[in-house]
Amino acid sequence: MDLTALFQFSYGVYVVGVTDGSRRNGCMANSLMQVTTEPPGLVAGLNKDSLTAQLLHKGGRFSVSVLGETVDPALIGTFGFRSGKDCDKFAEVNWEERGGLPILPQCCAYALCNVRQTMDLGTHWLFYGEVTDCGHLNAGTPMTYAYYHRVVKGAPLPKR
Amino acid sequence: MDLTALFQFSYGVYVVGVTDGSRRNGCMANSLMQVTTEPPGLVAGLNKDSLTAQLLHKGGRFSVSVLGETVDPALIGTFGFRSGKDCDKFAEVNWEERGGLPILPQCCAYALCNVRQTMDLGTHWLFYGEVTDCGHLNAGTPMTYAYYHRVVKGAPLPKR
Repeated sequence: MDLTALFQFSYGVYVVGVTDGSRRNGCMANSLMQVTTEPPGLVAGLNKDSLTAQLLHKGGRFSVSVLGETVDPALIGTFGFRSGKDCDKFAEVNWEERGGLPILPQCCAYALCNVRQTMDLGTHWLFYGEVTDCGHLNAGTPMTYAYYHRVVKGAPLPKR
Repeated sequence: MDLTALFQFSYGVYVVGVTDGSRRNGCMANSLMQVTTEPPGLVAGLNKDSLTAQLLHKGGRFSVSVLGETVDPALIGTFGFRSGKDCDKFAEVNWEERGGLPILPQCCAYALCNVRQTMDLGTHWLFYGEVTDCGHLNAGTPMTYAYYHRVVKGAPLPKR
């Protein structure tokens, strides 16, 4: 079994934003996809060790900001390589509140979700969220995870 | 709420292969991603109306073949636009058996999974499968769903 074969799967690059009512956080993620259309619903896989996953599990709501290819690399540094346990990531970037959740207005699009079901996958939670709001933000090409590795040249996203 | 914003999410293009022991089938799918690495695990979202989903729900195992950009368009026609209720799709293409499941050797990579958990999302099932085998098949660039729409110019995949 050659597990590098799984690198041939394709993904986008996103920032998941959360709050438990008292604090907010967010992290980069690539394990996100739409599955249902009636109602519109997304699934997101997050490592249980991440503060974002813990706040999401508690708060039951999340935002998704879709990163574009021209996104400021500093944003990737903040959301991909720092921990919300040590800092308020959103204090370092331009952000907006939509429906009580933080989103990143420099991105291509956003979605807000209410968690309807959660699957426990041992190391990860898989959240199924019904989309309560979504919209376009800026024109541009959404960043794929392959583009991120080829062009942005960062290290792999930690703890997806 | 502008649901076209969800088109900014990125996906690959895959053929999911299944068998219930007595018959085989497969369909194109884009709602597939890896979530866990210990053990390696994939999630796949499939519309309950599809024969592939029904055989998977019954058989509990599935293969994934990762389509490349240079895949024969006839393969997309077979797996994307015909129903296994009317024909044996694999009889129309070059296929191989791996671990009792059908895969497409002209693709970039394959994976075989045993279903460990299933989430009922109303119109769809979301299957979490542990990877029991995977490997590379041919060099090439994996096809993204955006590439499929931009270059292959087919209609949207039915019933993902």
